Amino acid sequence: MNGEAGRAGPLPAHRVLIVGGGFGGLYAARRLGKDDRVSVTLVDRRNFHLFTPLLYQVATGAVSPGDIAQPLRSILRRQRNTTVLLGEAVGVDVDKREVRLADGGPLAYDSLIVASGARFSYFGHEGWAKDAPGLKSLDDALEIRRRILIAFEAAEREHDAQRRAEWLTFVIVGGGPTGVELAGSLAEIARDTLRRDFRSIDTRSARILLVEALPRILPTYPADRSASAGRQLERIGATVRTGTRVVDIDDHSVGIERPDGTQERIPARTVLWAAGILASSFVATVATATGAPTDRNGRIIVGPDLTVPGHPEILAVGDAAVQPWKRDKPVPGVAQGGIQGGKYAAGTILARLSGETLPPFHYQNRGDVAVIGRLAGVTDIPWLGPFGRQSGFPAWVLWLTIHILYLIGFANRIVVVVRWGWSFFTRGRGSRLITGAPLLPPIEEPEPPA
Amino acid sequence: MNGEAGRAGPLPAHRVLIVGGGFGGLYAARRLGKDDRVSVTLVDRRNFHLFTPLLYQVATGAVSPGDIAQPLRSILRRQRNTTVLLGEAVGVDVDKREVRLADGGPLAYDSLIVASGARFSYFGHEGWAKDAPGLKSLDDALEIRRRILIAFEAAEREHDAQRRAEWLTFVIVGGGPTGVELAGSLAEIARDTLRRDFRSIDTRSARILLVEALPRILPTYPADRSASAGRQLERIGATVRTGTRVVDIDDHSVGIERPDGTQERIPARTVLWAAGILASSFVATVATATGAPTDRNGRIIVGPDLTVPGHPEILAVGDAAVQPWKRDKPVPGVAQGGIQGGKYAAGTILARLSGETLPPFHYQNRGDVAVIGRLAGVTDIPWLGPFGRQSGFPAWVLWLTIHILYLIGFANRIVVVVRWGWSFFTRGRGSRLITGAPLLPPIEEPEPPA
Repeated sequence: MNGEAGRAGPLPAHRVLIVGGGFGGLYAARRLGKDDRVSVTLVDRRNFHLFTPLLYQVATGAVSPGDIAQPLRSILRRQRNTTVLLGEAVGVDVDKREVRLADGGPLAYDSLIVASGARFSYFGHEGWAKDAPGLKSLDDALEIRRRILIAFEAAEREHDAQRRAEWLTFVIVGGGPTGVELAGSLAEIARDTLRRDFRSIDTRSARILLVEALPRILPTYPADRSASAGRQLERIGATVRTGTRVVDIDDHSVGIERPDGTQERIPARTVLWAAGILASSFVATVATATGAPTDRNGRIIVGPDLTVPGHPEILAVGDAAVQPWKRDKPVPGVAQGGIQGGKYAAGTILARLSGETLPPFHYQNRGDVAVIGRLAGVTDIPWLGPFGRQSGFPAWVLWLTIHILYLIGFANRIVVVVRWGWSFFTRGRGSRLITGAPLLPPIEEPEPPA
Repeated sequence: MNGEAGRAGPLPAHRVLIVGGGFGGLYAARRLGKDDRVSVTLVDRRNFHLFTPLLYQVATGAVSPGDIAQPLRSILRRQRNTTVLLGEAVGVDVDKREVRLADGGPLAYDSLIVASGARFSYFGHEGWAKDAPGLKSLDDALEIRRRILIAFEAAEREHDAQRRAEWLTFVIVGGGPTGVELAGSLAEIARDTLRRDFRSIDTRSARILLVEALPRILPTYPADRSASAGRQLERIGATVRTGTRVVDIDDHSVGIERPDGTQERIPARTVLWAAGILASSFVATVATATGAPTDRNGRIIVGPDLTVPGHPEILAVGDAAVQPWKRDKPVPGVAQGGIQGGKYAAGTILARLSGETLPPFHYQNRGDVAVIGRLAGVTDIPWLGPFGRQSGFPAWVLWLTIHILYLIGFANRIVVVVRWGWSFFTRGRGSRLITGAPLLPPIEEPEPPA
């Protein structure tokens, strides 16, 4: 393509630059790793690939950060044509075909794969971020773990019943898979894991509220799965409020608007954000530089071959792109979407080098699985037929199997199985550590007069 | 003792307050947990007990934080007479018998066990702390891990040979067990683990320097063990400089004074501090309030029954105290010292309740083990006779056995064995994650003109 193969220069190979080491970027790099017509550079702000579907398990203390993250260098070390760089991509010159890093560069490319993912969006209320952290990075997960554990500790030391109830109220905003799994894990912690650890409080009295603006939770699942998930959550002690919008968040409470339009203020010291995403700022940079259209989440609307309109040498995948699927809906923002997009983008580049053209990107929906607490969940796996629609314990077993198979790194798989097996039988959670930021300030914060 | 048994109040039991959940505090709490004549409160700033002998393994990415830490609540959950509180002890009123917390309290006691441990001391050069972090807490370990990994990443991206060498130079100050184990692990990482991960640098060219002011490393070991440790370190690529004092540290270099009095400046971007400790500030508070004598490390010089002179109701153990051993030397600051001190202090309190007196504290030296890199180490275990003095591989096997047996929490033991087994056979280190503080600033920091 574009005659690079004949270009003079230090690198005779076709230079593919991948920005982002999530599912899209990593699987693109892997697909390209066996072909020495290309030289691959993968840039990420972090030195590891993160198995994001299990992030909520770190946030709730079931597994350690190291269990679900693997250094990119070590995953790709055998690919002789691949270089991994630690750096933050902040600019692109589409004419010179160069990406600028925050602290160096520029990096030249012949083909660019934009796989820099997404972060949480507060829909214009960015001020809520400090009181309602989202769950997208490993640091987010550790911060959320810290807040959850400190809330129970603070409640244990609090003598005033009302303030104690505030500490024991947890509001999760957003009823997608992340919100549902967080709510389920939190209910499990309160009901089982911590039950015998405290002396002054009954952790089972903790109130876990899942708030969703749409009429049902898990809106991408079939309606009966949503209903089942709701019932399972209620059974383990969480409360589901659908059709309910969040209108305000501060460090002591959440303001909500009920389906009937009336408002209510819920006193709560811990609010977690699992609603709405926005593509990363590098995606916006690429969109501006190429004039590519984006959707309301800032994702680039790519063509059927995942290229950016007018720029066949730039491809966008995963959460950075609106990958085409059905007429009315794009590929959902799940790991499978990134994996398949990344592989396809890599395939497109290799096909071009051979003078071929691939058929348009076709997303294979491998189905959705969400786990709820310790032994329950819902699944929607179309290709398994009726068997793919499970609830409760069978859903949980399916979920466990799938996630363990996909975890990268063999040792991690064994370790995670041991840890889960252990926490399953003992109902304990070994990774309930409060690390990071100073511990006490959130507790000693003066309370306004009641 | 002191008639508390007949005192009226909400708690008829003898109230034991333990400050600190390290080895001393935890083992004291465990010993007291079976006796319902006492009610126990354990206060710690952190919610977990940390297996500090393996901290350097977290710092070098071999194991995850969760593998060597266990929530105090979960360890002590079965002790019905025990309450765990998250809090920082900042003051003591020895007349009222109350301890004040930074954010609440006061907590009343009949007996107080001071087990709040120690932190690193920079011998009056506290300004060195930011450029040469010490290894005492889990957060320290994560910060050190971050610095080590970032140094290799920065070297990979650096084009200037001199600056690259600066990034690849690691100086460890202090040749005690922590310094030796850090140097060994670092050498192993550079020689083996990272060797194939980078493209522009040869990680084996990294320079690892262990600097010790005394004439030999591991000064508490017999001289032939020290010599053997030195040889083993040199064999895996570390350099040992004994009789060498550090006179200055900044963010680009370390100034040292050689045995002959001449000075040298070593360009190095990563300096780790493993020299000298100072008892925690709560220990100083107790010493001031009781007028107790302290040694130059701020540790309270306790009597043969581990009580603070003039205050039989206050006991100090582990790194908070100078626990008596041989005429000319106290119990060393190792886990065993804390464990035995904590158990003894608890025993003293229980004996008094029965009107008995224990024989003076007698430290049983179970020996010392230090591991060097992947397969080597030195041991000095007197009670094993000649077999207790091992070098190389047998020392490493002994070390592994002992540490795994002492790790608290069954799941952690299995997980650690799996992880070690894996990293042993693959020479990989699964927990090489750079988390926390923003990644790039240390790299983009402008360099002074060479």
